[in-house]
Amino acid sequence: MASVESRPQQSQQRGYEGLTPGRVEAFSDGIFAIAATLLILNVQLPHEAAGGELGRQLLDLWPSYVAYGASFVTIGVMWLNHHALFARVARVDRTLVGLNLFMLGVIAFLPFPTQVLGTRIGVPDEATPAALLYAITGILIAFGYSGVYLWIGTHHELLHERFADVNYLSNAPRFLIGTIGYAGCIPLAFFYPPAAVLVIIAIVLYYSRDQLPQPRTPT
Amino acid sequence: MASVESRPQQSQQRGYEGLTPGRVEAFSDGIFAIAATLLILNVQLPHEAAGGELGRQLLDLWPSYVAYGASFVTIGVMWLNHHALFARVARVDRTLVGLNLFMLGVIAFLPFPTQVLGTRIGVPDEATPAALLYAITGILIAFGYSGVYLWIGTHHELLHERFADVNYLSNAPRFLIGTIGYAGCIPLAFFYPPAAVLVIIAIVLYYSRDQLPQPRTPT
Amino acid sequence: MASVESRPQQSQQRGYEGLTPGRVEAFSDGIFAIAATLLILNVQLPHEAAGGELGRQLLDLWPSYVAYGASFVTIGVMWLNHHALFARVARVDRTLVGLNLFMLGVIAFLPFPTQVLGTRIGVPDEATPAALLYAITGILIAFGYSGVYLWIGTHHELLHERFADVNYLSNAPRFLIGTIGYAGCIPLAFFYPPAAVLVIIAIVLYYSRDQLPQPRTPT
Amino acid sequence: MASVESRPQQSQQRGYEGLTPGRVEAFSDGIFAIAATLLILNVQLPHEAAGGELGRQLLDLWPSYVAYGASFVTIGVMWLNHHALFARVARVDRTLVGLNLFMLGVIAFLPFPTQVLGTRIGVPDEATPAALLYAITGILIAFGYSGVYLWIGTHHELLHERFADVNYLSNAPRFLIGTIGYAGCIPLAFFYPPAAVLVIIAIVLYYSRDQLPQPRTPT
Repeated sequence: MASVESRPQQSQQRGYEGLTPGRVEAFSDGIFAIAATLLILNVQLPHEAAGGELGRQLLDLWPSYVAYGASFVTIGVMWLNHHALFARVARVDRTLVGLNLFMLGVIAFLPFPTQVLGTRIGVPDEATPAALLYAITGILIAFGYSGVYLWIGTHHELLHERFADVNYLSNAPRFLIGTIGYAGCIPLAFFYPPAAVLVIIAIVLYYSRDQLPQPRTPT
Repeated sequence: MASVESRPQQSQQRGYEGLTPGRVEAFSDGIFAIAATLLILNVQLPHEAAGGELGRQLLDLWPSYVAYGASFVTIGVMWLNHHALFARVARVDRTLVGLNLFMLGVIAFLPFPTQVLGTRIGVPDEATPAALLYAITGILIAFGYSGVYLWIGTHHELLHERFADVNYLSNAPRFLIGTIGYAGCIPLAFFYPPAAVLVIIAIVLYYSRDQLPQPRTPT
Repeated sequence: MASVESRPQQSQQRGYEGLTPGRVEAFSDGIFAIAATLLILNVQLPHEAAGGELGRQLLDLWPSYVAYGASFVTIGVMWLNHHALFARVARVDRTLVGLNLFMLGVIAFLPFPTQVLGTRIGVPDEATPAALLYAITGILIAFGYSGVYLWIGTHHELLHERFADVNYLSNAPRFLIGTIGYAGCIPLAFFYPPAAVLVIIAIVLYYSRDQLPQPRTPT
Repeated sequence: MASVESRPQQSQQRGYEGLTPGRVEAFSDGIFAIAATLLILNVQLPHEAAGGELGRQLLDLWPSYVAYGASFVTIGVMWLNHHALFARVARVDRTLVGLNLFMLGVIAFLPFPTQVLGTRIGVPDEATPAALLYAITGILIAFGYSGVYLWIGTHHELLHERFADVNYLSNAPRFLIGTIGYAGCIPLAFFYPPAAVLVIIAIVLYYSRDQLPQPRTPT
């Protein structure tokens, strides 16, 4: 059987359990794309629709539109950063796959706090728990991504050669900012929940500009 | 580690944050395919089903079937045009990724206006806001795609060489037609909502025939 | 820019609007996989749950489990046959992409008739319209797949060379069997709806064994 | 047509109906990723929300969060093991594709028992049937994966050469453990349903550490 060795994936380094970084990236992409697209299923008109008021109902849904947008951008930015990181990875090990699955599990959870935020932020007594749930999910996402980042940054044998001599820990404070920001949303949610939501959006925009530490020589 | 450089993606140009056009295309394909398939979840029988009338209920759902078909074709045509465009892209930069994410965010939003259109276009007082919501979403899709197109068309350093000398702006009026068409649906929705829906479908069919400007030499 | 021509997809024949058969296959795979996985969202316990009867409720859902299984296998078999066909395709043209989109639109529609079948086949007056809806969807799937098949079979310039001299029309009667079978379900649904469902399942199992006409020389 | 043979997939062995292992893996990945991401759609607040109690409602949903996590990890572990297995496969035949589809059908079913478990495990009379449904689904997953494993392990002509001389049956007892464990959950569900859930989680964690039998020579 001449073509036995011909599978394209074979040219990648199959590490833990035959997994290549490309497979992990493709699976992660799937979770990112599906979670982002499922967000819309939680934007719903109220069931008890009274005739003639559809226009007002659609306008009253604006917190759901904002929550949809914020979570869509969050997932998009996570997807970008995840790719930036995995573009440097040559092999995966079991811990990396486990940390990555944890991060994906929190990303896939995001449609639920998004729905709660969108439907309850405008209800006086419910804005605080809704903002809290969203902030806690944000903290878990930050934990998940930091875990993946720190594992890769401290295990240079997993990296492509030209990225292996970068000091990844020099970048760790940037993650700390996000975690501190999300944590700060917890007390904020008790005093003024909309401010907590604004901080969460600001954190995502900050990370959309984040850059990984670069190797000294260009490609 | 001999195979460190062997990832197939490495042969593409990893631009902004390690992203290749192929990755952006694959992520976009995921969003297109998921959004198109989620449309059906919003085709639902009324909850309070009276015995023996199922046949009539299924027939009465025809506006939902039409809305499903119109949005499925819209997403399919967007997917086609998106590919036609990205087939020419050799590298992505940060703005292109951002514009593309905005466009995907509107595409992923489409199941909601589709549901509203399908369930409310037949209700006298609700047809106008339902058609308005759908038309506004159409305008945003046109804006998103135009943004991606114009950025690529004015940044030839992102293109494959043989497509770099094409005058992309010569094609811009075609996008204007779509945007004007969708904008025209807004007053139309106040007078006769079904006509607005027909115009939206006509616009999609027009774009299914659209062609990008070709380079002078064949492949 | 030395790597400008290096995108792996470039090695395929980009036909209509830059689309390769691989891209069309990947998009189709996405629709198949998502439609199959969404089927489960329509298996739901009744809302008005009375305490202590959960076991019985779960058992009473058996028509939904059967409908889930039948549609999952249908989509799986369609996916198999779709791949068998596209493995022979070297280039796509506009009509093929359009016919393929129509077929995918019907596949993505399948979760709705599946839900109706599963929840209504056991209700005396509702079994007939539920079976009719499922049979009509089956006919449309057969039409869609036949359209893709016949277009490929009569346009040999789209095929890989070694598959181009096969007489595809010799296989057309097999598609006729399916279409006739689904059409026969329509009168059957009026007399005895469960028999219509059994015929539909039998048709799918028949196609799971179907083989494309082979070229005279082995690979 | 010079590039007729240039499709990358051609370099793989197209076996049954033109399917390559890579295509089967990609389709399976899609099902795994979608099923895992759909789990969150079944985490829902009760409809009849009383004002001011949102915080308590969110806390009371904890069984749904646990069920979400358990099923997400289950699907993640199945995905890992599925890859480990298919990394060794050079060709697929019809039976392997059929067994794989059965396994995927059970995986795609998992969101339903997960929802039932999460919403009913806390209801006194409903915990037993909810745990039973989840355990039976677990048994079917174990059957499906064992079927795929045993077919591959007894058909060495489907394997890459260097994996063909491994004794796969030596590993079969490990699958027996899982099946016995799930089966043991059935009586357990009658006496103390939460214990059945814990056993199910323990089984998944056991399989996350499972390793396929290795060839004698390293890569």
